[in-house]
Amino acid sequence: MSVDTDERDHFQAVLRAWDDYLPYSLHRNNERRSSLYAQPHEHQAMLSSLSTPVPGPPGTPGAYAGFRDKLNEMDDRIRRNADVLSSMAQFCHSFLGIMNTEPSMPPRTEQPTRSVSDRDQDRVRTVLKQMVRDWSQEGAEERKLAYDPIIEAVVSRVPRNRRVLVPGSGLGRLAFELTQRGYACQGNEFSYFMLIPAHFILNCTERIHQHALFPFVHSASNWRSASDMLRCIHVPDVLPSSLPEEADFSMVAGEFVEVYAKPEEHGAWDVVATCYFMDTAKNVLRYLEVINAVLPIGGLWINVGPLLWHFEHDTEPSLELTLEELLALAVECGFEVEERRTLAPQTYTGAPLSMLSHHYVPEFWVCKKVRHHPMAPSI
Amino acid sequence: MSVDTDERDHFQAVLRAWDDYLPYSLHRNNERRSSLYAQPHEHQAMLSSLSTPVPGPPGTPGAYAGFRDKLNEMDDRIRRNADVLSSMAQFCHSFLGIMNTEPSMPPRTEQPTRSVSDRDQDRVRTVLKQMVRDWSQEGAEERKLAYDPIIEAVVSRVPRNRRVLVPGSGLGRLAFELTQRGYACQGNEFSYFMLIPAHFILNCTERIHQHALFPFVHSASNWRSASDMLRCIHVPDVLPSSLPEEADFSMVAGEFVEVYAKPEEHGAWDVVATCYFMDTAKNVLRYLEVINAVLPIGGLWINVGPLLWHFEHDTEPSLELTLEELLALAVECGFEVEERRTLAPQTYTGAPLSMLSHHYVPEFWVCKKVRHHPMAPSI
Repeated sequence: MSVDTDERDHFQAVLRAWDDYLPYSLHRNNERRSSLYAQPHEHQAMLSSLSTPVPGPPGTPGAYAGFRDKLNEMDDRIRRNADVLSSMAQFCHSFLGIMNTEPSMPPRTEQPTRSVSDRDQDRVRTVLKQMVRDWSQEGAEERKLAYDPIIEAVVSRVPRNRRVLVPGSGLGRLAFELTQRGYACQGNEFSYFMLIPAHFILNCTERIHQHALFPFVHSASNWRSASDMLRCIHVPDVLPSSLPEEADFSMVAGEFVEVYAKPEEHGAWDVVATCYFMDTAKNVLRYLEVINAVLPIGGLWINVGPLLWHFEHDTEPSLELTLEELLALAVECGFEVEERRTLAPQTYTGAPLSMLSHHYVPEFWVCKKVRHHPMAPSI
Repeated sequence: MSVDTDERDHFQAVLRAWDDYLPYSLHRNNERRSSLYAQPHEHQAMLSSLSTPVPGPPGTPGAYAGFRDKLNEMDDRIRRNADVLSSMAQFCHSFLGIMNTEPSMPPRTEQPTRSVSDRDQDRVRTVLKQMVRDWSQEGAEERKLAYDPIIEAVVSRVPRNRRVLVPGSGLGRLAFELTQRGYACQGNEFSYFMLIPAHFILNCTERIHQHALFPFVHSASNWRSASDMLRCIHVPDVLPSSLPEEADFSMVAGEFVEVYAKPEEHGAWDVVATCYFMDTAKNVLRYLEVINAVLPIGGLWINVGPLLWHFEHDTEPSLELTLEELLALAVECGFEVEERRTLAPQTYTGAPLSMLSHHYVPEFWVCKKVRHHPMAPSI
């Protein structure tokens, strides 16, 4: 793994956010307690004498209890999440020790502004939900809807042992599934918010259902019951170490264009499988060019995803294309559409028991590289 | 309508946001143009020579055109939206002239901060989507799923001519529908972002489909085609002035608790119908107390909605309850649950052709007031 200063800074910022999870989340929950105390005495009394079911910690019976007891149980689940997050960070300190060769972390000279911290804490919370999507039984439906079309397309068209690249691999489940089916598979991911838990789950899991997570405890909106909000999810649902010894599976840290535009990657992959990835581009034409570059003529680009352009509301330049435009440009960039269909509506890190869910209706396609397309110079 | 300083300030802030819609939205779209020019020349050329269908202004043919042409058409639709918004503001200046008796609007001594402007502009855009929900043919499905259970419950249980209160009435369609069925109906709404277009559509509509709106033009994410993003919606789908002369229909501006906690409202309503409203409370126990107060014994509270607590992430105190807790408290506050069920998944101001939509699974109930419940003192 190449280690430059930017990457080390990003890594250390992520570890700081990891460390901040517990105090930040307890503080947010404590604001709920303060809100309670700001209400009229009669209302506080009514809320305290509520008798609705509140589950106890895993392995203990629940009780009929009041509003304050629920907040206490939320604190408890936040602490349990923090324990797992802390194991991840510890494991990655040793695994990715090379990132941390500075004598010590740079001292925090000032408090991070609230909004930056909010955003990074959102990302830490997303880790927990992503765990559900990629590595729990409860995520099976999401994986079936998003990953199966890709897996089926690869298996039905590409001989085993061929090389498959998965950009934006997140916590690595799609890359793992393809490896398990006999392909030489590489996941590529930019964010250490994803790389840390991915390494942890892939390399530090001893048994199925080893870790208990409470991914839904951070928002108190749209719940039917406290049990739904405090729901326990066990990960992983499969043992990542169950891959056969000869399996060729790797994860590469770094920005997709930076890593794969290099000449040694040209024509090096038989398939590029992108899942909820294309819309992470600031300029998706670069992604198209690099996908073209890493494939040989006849190589396949398989995609599932909507077009939620990640940088649309950012200060940096961002290109937002319609599906029609993107596919027209794919043709300009040397691809031919072999198959295309609209997939069933699906959630992405959704909470199935919530009264609100976000449904994507993503597009699936298989494109074949029919011609080399040169990369445009940068200006 | 009572006019205090706070209310006048709110009204004038809303009118300023209204005025800002055009420059703000054009500026945001112009940032897309700048993003295009920031890309490599080859990419700009490819995007310019795209030949995907881009619809022309209403009544003109579309064309196969490039990325820049699409941005120009987006500007055009923003201008058309601004024309309608400007008619609304003009109408309300005269209709609500009493609000504007100051010699002139207070001069803006400094530029509003960007984030405040963003939030208010979000609200102006929401007006356009709310128009689709409440007053277009395209909103029929949303209205059927959310309003019909309420309307059916009222019609099947309450004799005509009885008095129905609709807190959080937004653009007024639910209150209008109940009036049309023979009830004496009052809508209550706090926000001038809703009151201005509500007054406009209810009092200033001469024919069906009078106004053409383009509610989906503000985000360029998750579209299959430019036609979907530039889609034209005509409002209204019915003529609000078609109510019979003897119809008893009113709209009252103001915060629900402030307006209806007054003694003259006690026991004054036979039904309180809340639709996507309860979660707008900072302290929902106050809402429960006021609903109890305005009903006689035997009066009905009919509700449809999820629990997206609007102030959860606010700096002010906010109570977020689960559905179980809310219903337990309703019983404490003098109600008996007569009927209850989970409704079909539904969108709220959704864009049906987008690749992303937000689905609510709201709860429906009919509660009967069985006993008076005193309002708690404020501390």
